Amino acid sequence: MIPHHDGSELYVSNPAPALGETVSVFVRVPAGLRTSRIHLRWLSDGEPVFTSAVVDRTDATGDVWWRAEMPVRNPVTRYRFLIRTSQGVRWLTGLGLTHYDVPDNTDFRLVTHLAPPAWARDAVVYQIFPDRFARSGAAIDRERPDWAIPASWDTPAALGSTQVLYGGDLDGVARRLDHIAGLGADTLYLTPFFPGRSAHRYDASSFDRVDPLLGGDAALSRLSQSVHERGMRILGDLTTNHTGLAHPWFEQNRDFYYIKKDGSFESWLGLGELPKLNWGSGELRRRFVEIIQRFSADLDGWRIDVANMTGRRGADDWTYEVARLLREAAGDGLLIAEHAHDATGDLDRNGWHGTMNYSGFTRPVWGWLRADELPFDDFLGVPGEVPARDAAATVATMSAFGAQMSWRSWTTSWSILGSHDTARIRTVVGSADRQEVAAGLLLTMPGTPMIFAGDEIGMTGDNNDTARQPMPWDRPDTWDRATFGRYKNLIALRKAHPALRRGGLRWVAGDADSLLFLRECAEQTVLVLARRAGHEPLRTTDLPAGSRWENLYGGAKPLYTEPDGSTTIDVSGPAFQVWAADTHK
Amino acid sequence: MIPHHDGSELYVSNPAPALGETVSVFVRVPAGLRTSRIHLRWLSDGEPVFTSAVVDRTDATGDVWWRAEMPVRNPVTRYRFLIRTSQGVRWLTGLGLTHYDVPDNTDFRLVTHLAPPAWARDAVVYQIFPDRFARSGAAIDRERPDWAIPASWDTPAALGSTQVLYGGDLDGVARRLDHIAGLGADTLYLTPFFPGRSAHRYDASSFDRVDPLLGGDAALSRLSQSVHERGMRILGDLTTNHTGLAHPWFEQNRDFYYIKKDGSFESWLGLGELPKLNWGSGELRRRFVEIIQRFSADLDGWRIDVANMTGRRGADDWTYEVARLLREAAGDGLLIAEHAHDATGDLDRNGWHGTMNYSGFTRPVWGWLRADELPFDDFLGVPGEVPARDAAATVATMSAFGAQMSWRSWTTSWSILGSHDTARIRTVVGSADRQEVAAGLLLTMPGTPMIFAGDEIGMTGDNNDTARQPMPWDRPDTWDRATFGRYKNLIALRKAHPALRRGGLRWVAGDADSLLFLRECAEQTVLVLARRAGHEPLRTTDLPAGSRWENLYGGAKPLYTEPDGSTTIDVSGPAFQVWAADTHK
Repeated sequence: MIPHHDGSELYVSNPAPALGETVSVFVRVPAGLRTSRIHLRWLSDGEPVFTSAVVDRTDATGDVWWRAEMPVRNPVTRYRFLIRTSQGVRWLTGLGLTHYDVPDNTDFRLVTHLAPPAWARDAVVYQIFPDRFARSGAAIDRERPDWAIPASWDTPAALGSTQVLYGGDLDGVARRLDHIAGLGADTLYLTPFFPGRSAHRYDASSFDRVDPLLGGDAALSRLSQSVHERGMRILGDLTTNHTGLAHPWFEQNRDFYYIKKDGSFESWLGLGELPKLNWGSGELRRRFVEIIQRFSADLDGWRIDVANMTGRRGADDWTYEVARLLREAAGDGLLIAEHAHDATGDLDRNGWHGTMNYSGFTRPVWGWLRADELPFDDFLGVPGEVPARDAAATVATMSAFGAQMSWRSWTTSWSILGSHDTARIRTVVGSADRQEVAAGLLLTMPGTPMIFAGDEIGMTGDNNDTARQPMPWDRPDTWDRATFGRYKNLIALRKAHPALRRGGLRWVAGDADSLLFLRECAEQTVLVLARRAGHEPLRTTDLPAGSRWENLYGGAKPLYTEPDGSTTIDVSGPAFQVWAADTHK
Repeated sequence: MIPHHDGSELYVSNPAPALGETVSVFVRVPAGLRTSRIHLRWLSDGEPVFTSAVVDRTDATGDVWWRAEMPVRNPVTRYRFLIRTSQGVRWLTGLGLTHYDVPDNTDFRLVTHLAPPAWARDAVVYQIFPDRFARSGAAIDRERPDWAIPASWDTPAALGSTQVLYGGDLDGVARRLDHIAGLGADTLYLTPFFPGRSAHRYDASSFDRVDPLLGGDAALSRLSQSVHERGMRILGDLTTNHTGLAHPWFEQNRDFYYIKKDGSFESWLGLGELPKLNWGSGELRRRFVEIIQRFSADLDGWRIDVANMTGRRGADDWTYEVARLLREAAGDGLLIAEHAHDATGDLDRNGWHGTMNYSGFTRPVWGWLRADELPFDDFLGVPGEVPARDAAATVATMSAFGAQMSWRSWTTSWSILGSHDTARIRTVVGSADRQEVAAGLLLTMPGTPMIFAGDEIGMTGDNNDTARQPMPWDRPDTWDRATFGRYKNLIALRKAHPALRRGGLRWVAGDADSLLFLRECAEQTVLVLARRAGHEPLRTTDLPAGSRWENLYGGAKPLYTEPDGSTTIDVSGPAFQVWAADTHK
């Protein structure tokens, strides 16, 4: 192991300081690693300041903890460590140890902006696409709008089915809360409930009311009440980049859009039905603040659609202002930004609390666990098949993205195995056993797990149309009950073990087919093994000598770390296993 | 070699496009490397867009050039390439090829902001510390201010000598232009000429006039005229972060500063003589615009002191606004930001044109070329000795910083071996031969060379006080004439060969003691070897098969690349050698 720091509570005395406070930050130096000097460097008003760290304590495993005090001078304080080891001088940043100088953008970050709501850290999110999740009795009787092609619940959703309306509604969701609670998820995320002219409703024709096809405002309030009575939470989905062409603003408020005199207008990816909003308009800003406030009694926050483009167009770039405005409007609500390539530059700016972590989680997990043959190309617009990657490349990607945001933003961001915009994870990995490995990573890594409804029963789909199948409530024979049980157990595992929610993350050397890491907090140390293949026993010398590890998940035998520090893990892949160290200081 | 792109003219059809233009970008794929597909990815309004590159041509060396068209949609367009090689799918960004996904911050950047002045690209800057460079006859007769400790020109400058006034002045500089022109430098950069209460004058007591001790406004105009008559240029030094306590603003314009009711105030690094400016003041902003405009007739631009802190204090961060404001005020003048750790986040924002590249050039060169024993600790505040680094770590640092700015910002930034704020390069490297290697890098790498007056005659000094010795005009016996000749020849080399000023940069595999790289433009291909030590011949297979290389600098024999692509370079270190390929398309 190498010296380690991350933004978790083991290493930072106060992860949500006020300006002017002084925070203690710690570096853990593994037992036996000779380290003569550690300096903390932080940026104060743009200037690096160095201070000497001191040895704080040696823990039960022999690791030495160094401590330094850091005054929090700016809203975002970037910091790193300069470490003199027997091998030479190294920087410790979010990228780990480097033997050469690196720019500041992978520095650790401490943020004074208002923290995300406390519940978000422990949430397990369940994504619902309202038209396809569940019908109430009322849904079937509602009048069909002119754009809709009605479909019975058992009709398979096919390519190009955005106009196909199955008639799921919010009272239908409310009827199925037992399923969600039974799984253990506690936060509903609904894709848009505003009226539109498609099944996905990302083409809003109004933000004033809940779509009557879904039961209207009253149904949202009923659902919200039921959700909150169970101690659960509920999030909406707000399209801030564009509206549908049918939105009355497009006729009444032309300056809300980019419309030229000849009537041509800017639209999302050139799709003429989705005219792009111009956030230079103060009135538009006021309207969106009102929208968020109007639903604040029913909702605990929002996912922001196309956040990466919102407010950006040519020389205009209002994105940070929009994010800050909406966060203020949302009060103590959660705001999660959709961003499919790299949101890190947009986080830690007192706006979005986190992102949908497609780049730092989904894509590396897919690349590592993907089936040999994939029935689709394209990952969220990236051409070519998702490339097969080994464990080292997977960790490198996860670390590269994680290093460019605060720990808070990383852990508040959503880990996703698939969504309404992608193929299903089951189709990506090709087997239930590999799906278990994926779900294991989802539920044991830093980041808020988000599960697209249906993943937990092994639903398949090779693109975003075919992944949006109605939930087969009436065809229990199609459910993969074993997968449901694994998701349920993994969620319960996360809920039961604080290290999986609040712990730091240390990678342990594995092999190309194995991801091995520690999640650690003051109360416990948890070891996670995700293995995609392979039968050879794994050997590591990274674990504390003399420790014993009890299995928490997966059923493998306990592990023993020999007095010489070596541990042998004899688990064949695909497998997902979790252990906890039985001795804890 | 690996597939390559950089921002130089070989690879970008227009490095200074207007918004809305379409630019062709190229990837060079070395002969023999199988590449089935290349996609260009760029960000358009925050969303990645992919387009297929096509094969444009195969050049005389067998390299295949792929071309893609990129519409320039935003003021800064980030782009990268997705390359399918026989080894798998790779990203090509400013970091080179990666086999895992990386965030956008090392993407290449194309910038539409007003370009730096055209002359800046070809400039060789000569830094003058006016009190210590040269006296005119008049200087000796001027009245000594109360703060000053007078010193004769031959008195060695010692530690803590900021109050010691030697009496150099601007007419003295004018008298020595033959020396500067003889060296080949063409751009004078004067540290502050405003009145203050120290020899360095970074504690301005006025920005209204040139210090009478230096000869006043008239002397600056005389110097400017002489400089421009020679076709040379001249830059000032503006302290925008703070003033001296003696500045009348401190009494008359309290809101220009951070002053509390109890009279205590914010100051630079806590030094009470340097009260920090509050750029929240609109009137302060107007004053600085006036200052810049007042001197625009005499000056070709400014170096901005403490740019990294300017406008930053606690929750205030006006830095980008200040940079933009000052750049507009400077018209077609050059603005170079002092920034000792990492300026990359502050560049490409329509403000500073470049930085003093201490992090991406000075520190890696020092770490690679440093003497075994250094008579000092501390590199610009970084505690501990400058760590010894091998060539790979040196390239890694240079690449890491270079990857985070546009090519334009990189090449406009100043490469520095030492300045009035550091030890002298001769002291750092410990010998004339190693200094030649350092100067060779300075004058052949991307970036504008800046030479601190005296380096060219081998002056020494182990800290910023002792490095600020008066130029020994009257003690020619102390001059290292061989070093002067090497600087002169290297400057001439840079001037004569466009590849050294405008060419791209490709690193060639060397060894720990050797930096080997190509600078290439349409007209020529230049190979540079910097070798700090070692006698073993270097062998590389990175050069085009069948090529012959004529020596341009250093006196080594011509090189031949065998038909099998291997080249043997038999040069013992320390050495600096430059060759040009004799066959050029």
